Amino acid sequence: MNRSNSPETGFIDPSGANAEAIRHLAEDVLDQLLGQLGAAEDRSPLPDESAVPAGTIPESPRSQTDLLGDLETIVAGSMNPAHPGYIGHMDTMPTTVSVLGDLVASAINNNMLSVEMSPVLSELEVQLTETIASEFGLGPDAGGVLASGGSLANLHALSVARNHAFDVQGGGLTGLAREPVLFTSEVAHTSLQKAAMVLGLGTDAVVAVETDADSRMKPSALNHAVEQAERDGHVPFCVVATAGTTTTGNIDPLPAVSEIADEHDLWLHVDAAYGGALVFSGAERGRLDGIEAADSVTFNPQKWCYVAKTCAMALFADTDVLQEKFRIGAPYMRGDDAIPNLGELGVQGTRRAEVLKLWLTFQHLGRDGLGQLIDESYRLTAAVRDHVADHDTLELASEPEMNLVCFRAAPDWCPPDERDALNGRLQRYLLSEQEIFVSLPTYRDARWLRVVLLNPFTDEATLDRLFDGVDVFLDADGP
Amino acid sequence: MNRSNSPETGFIDPSGANAEAIRHLAEDVLDQLLGQLGAAEDRSPLPDESAVPAGTIPESPRSQTDLLGDLETIVAGSMNPAHPGYIGHMDTMPTTVSVLGDLVASAINNNMLSVEMSPVLSELEVQLTETIASEFGLGPDAGGVLASGGSLANLHALSVARNHAFDVQGGGLTGLAREPVLFTSEVAHTSLQKAAMVLGLGTDAVVAVETDADSRMKPSALNHAVEQAERDGHVPFCVVATAGTTTTGNIDPLPAVSEIADEHDLWLHVDAAYGGALVFSGAERGRLDGIEAADSVTFNPQKWCYVAKTCAMALFADTDVLQEKFRIGAPYMRGDDAIPNLGELGVQGTRRAEVLKLWLTFQHLGRDGLGQLIDESYRLTAAVRDHVADHDTLELASEPEMNLVCFRAAPDWCPPDERDALNGRLQRYLLSEQEIFVSLPTYRDARWLRVVLLNPFTDEATLDRLFDGVDVFLDADGP
Repeated sequence: MNRSNSPETGFIDPSGANAEAIRHLAEDVLDQLLGQLGAAEDRSPLPDESAVPAGTIPESPRSQTDLLGDLETIVAGSMNPAHPGYIGHMDTMPTTVSVLGDLVASAINNNMLSVEMSPVLSELEVQLTETIASEFGLGPDAGGVLASGGSLANLHALSVARNHAFDVQGGGLTGLAREPVLFTSEVAHTSLQKAAMVLGLGTDAVVAVETDADSRMKPSALNHAVEQAERDGHVPFCVVATAGTTTTGNIDPLPAVSEIADEHDLWLHVDAAYGGALVFSGAERGRLDGIEAADSVTFNPQKWCYVAKTCAMALFADTDVLQEKFRIGAPYMRGDDAIPNLGELGVQGTRRAEVLKLWLTFQHLGRDGLGQLIDESYRLTAAVRDHVADHDTLELASEPEMNLVCFRAAPDWCPPDERDALNGRLQRYLLSEQEIFVSLPTYRDARWLRVVLLNPFTDEATLDRLFDGVDVFLDADGP
Repeated sequence: MNRSNSPETGFIDPSGANAEAIRHLAEDVLDQLLGQLGAAEDRSPLPDESAVPAGTIPESPRSQTDLLGDLETIVAGSMNPAHPGYIGHMDTMPTTVSVLGDLVASAINNNMLSVEMSPVLSELEVQLTETIASEFGLGPDAGGVLASGGSLANLHALSVARNHAFDVQGGGLTGLAREPVLFTSEVAHTSLQKAAMVLGLGTDAVVAVETDADSRMKPSALNHAVEQAERDGHVPFCVVATAGTTTTGNIDPLPAVSEIADEHDLWLHVDAAYGGALVFSGAERGRLDGIEAADSVTFNPQKWCYVAKTCAMALFADTDVLQEKFRIGAPYMRGDDAIPNLGELGVQGTRRAEVLKLWLTFQHLGRDGLGQLIDESYRLTAAVRDHVADHDTLELASEPEMNLVCFRAAPDWCPPDERDALNGRLQRYLLSEQEIFVSLPTYRDARWLRVVLLNPFTDEATLDRLFDGVDVFLDADGP
């Protein structure tokens, strides 16, 4: 072929003709990357004033040296979740094999759209989602489809729930006499609002159910809300329970919620995007009791299972319902008796083989390794909780159930209406002076410092640095 | 930390403590992978009877040796689009830098959900989508959001179109008196049906417009369909034109379609998932004339720009409409004046930094390199077309406009009702005997051999092998 204007390394020659040049480029990128990752603690958890290369398209190829320089700059300026002081969001450093699995997945560029385009990986995804559904106790007919992020998994599950209840695949919602409504706690993830909007239900269709002091849905409030909606002439069809709320990591009372769902004949979706990982901890999996009654579950290994993002899934207790209430066939795809074309069953069509990094992570860490990571983060969470309790000037947002703790500085000398600003300053101080990144969410109309103890290299010394910083800041900022 | 059960290489230590072990593992994976990719032409384009490892979760970590062995097996059994004989689907071998870009993106694990979680990469995505929107001539207020696949980009665009027309973000579709309908050609992509279903419009809301002999929407039929829908009491709100149909790669007449959209005040969405790449060819970009009138465009660099999947985008001529008609805020995310939180503007929330591999591909190939790849594939397409014309026993499905050609064997000695089976046997013969994979779509109620000339290493010799195989097969299978 004639590619005189293209770089020699543009593509990997399938005959090996440019093997040496490809190897040099790949090794240069790998060397530089591993160098930066192996020194991640020398950069800020969240760099400030990062340089951004121009988002333009050059006429001619740029040199590999230039590209390597830009890549180095991009990594240097990016969010740095590998830093042990990065404890602010549900964003992890990834497992090594999930990074390498993504390298392989991109290189072979298979397509989860159909079995023909991913013969091994489609089957692996079917098997592995069945395995995970079984971990949640969803029964013998359960299975699922991976999704590039939890928002899509929630959208997928609610789409099936809606179609199951109203049979609107063909005719749509316009003809319905009464409005479908679904129920979820007032602190549930905003992706549910987005899903309701996209699904044509509208955000008003999401009824926010009151929570208790620890951000857990009140069963009595749920029951009341469902009955009120019926009285208002709406049609309740679904309740979404959360296992791991975004801000404080709390778990709705799954057995009580599922009982109410059952009484009112509602689809039960459990958004276990974050908390689903607990199923891999012998010590903590009991916290998910009740999830086995779900009709569908969202679970994101991209969070507490440390798989590089994205890696999420929607699981269904009855995959026949998924087939009957969602599937749209494509005329250009060959079918297969045993393994479905997954692109016909999910919200996405063409999709990366994200199953590879998930599978590799399970194989490389084992259930034991995952369990240990989870148990260790509980230990650190208890330590954070104790630090907060030891400080008269700090208050806790809710009792931790997972590895999230929200607290704030609330010293007597600071008037209540100035405490949001105080905590904003404290957050910036911790980042700039202590190399600790905590996030600053709004929760119950106030700003909180949010700690997510995911990083495997965070230890007591990190926590000491955090609370030493709090002490010094409050002494300096105080009266 | 105490991770006695975990492998030493589970995570990359940010202090460099396990740098040597990590380097060994990464180099072993890279060596094996490059070895397999550099010999891709020695494997079948589509292996048969592939081995699939067990989709289970072991109790204890498995050895790295075992994992490398399994990885080798997975790659060996997967779809092999790097083989020059893989000319059957819109699945490419990826650019080298897009594979390496995915490695880096996974390693730093940034999150396009918010600026705080991807400070450099969010800004790069905003810049680059603006650059591409400008290539399409969408105007000074245009921009967009990347999506993990074209189905999501179409869903995103139609969601905004629907909300723009009916203002249903809060209240949903149930209250509408009349049914919204949208128009697209009878051969448009099934993701539009899926989008209509997910959006609560229902698949019936997608009106299939008749096409001409070359699979292009007939403007007169569109006009008629819109007027008919109005007479039927429906509310037309959108027309989707296709630039690059899935089966035959044809382009709807964009200027005529946009004129009709204008007359009837319809949102014009152009699904240029495949054909959008033409904008990078000086010789061929005129085929997209008219796209500048679009309200939204889907474009997938994961196809003809050779970026590892997934990499797609929804572009909007007026990003204010996107802000006003789609955005749902999240209380746990910090805003930024200049750069939006992209997770609030797209269908996905948490999302990989797929912009990195896209940006790297542009930098590494340049506009010249991309243009050359496109022009070269036109040259080969003409050669395939000539081969078909030279064979009395072969017929063409439609006149090629891009790098797709559908043809079939239709020898006199084979009765018309046996020709589907004949072409099925021919497809399998080409794969098993000639190492040529063509796909076998159903198009106009018949099976066709579909050639997609994407692979940069496919050349005349490959085409000779294809048509030699056709000759030998028809001689042997014939009367």
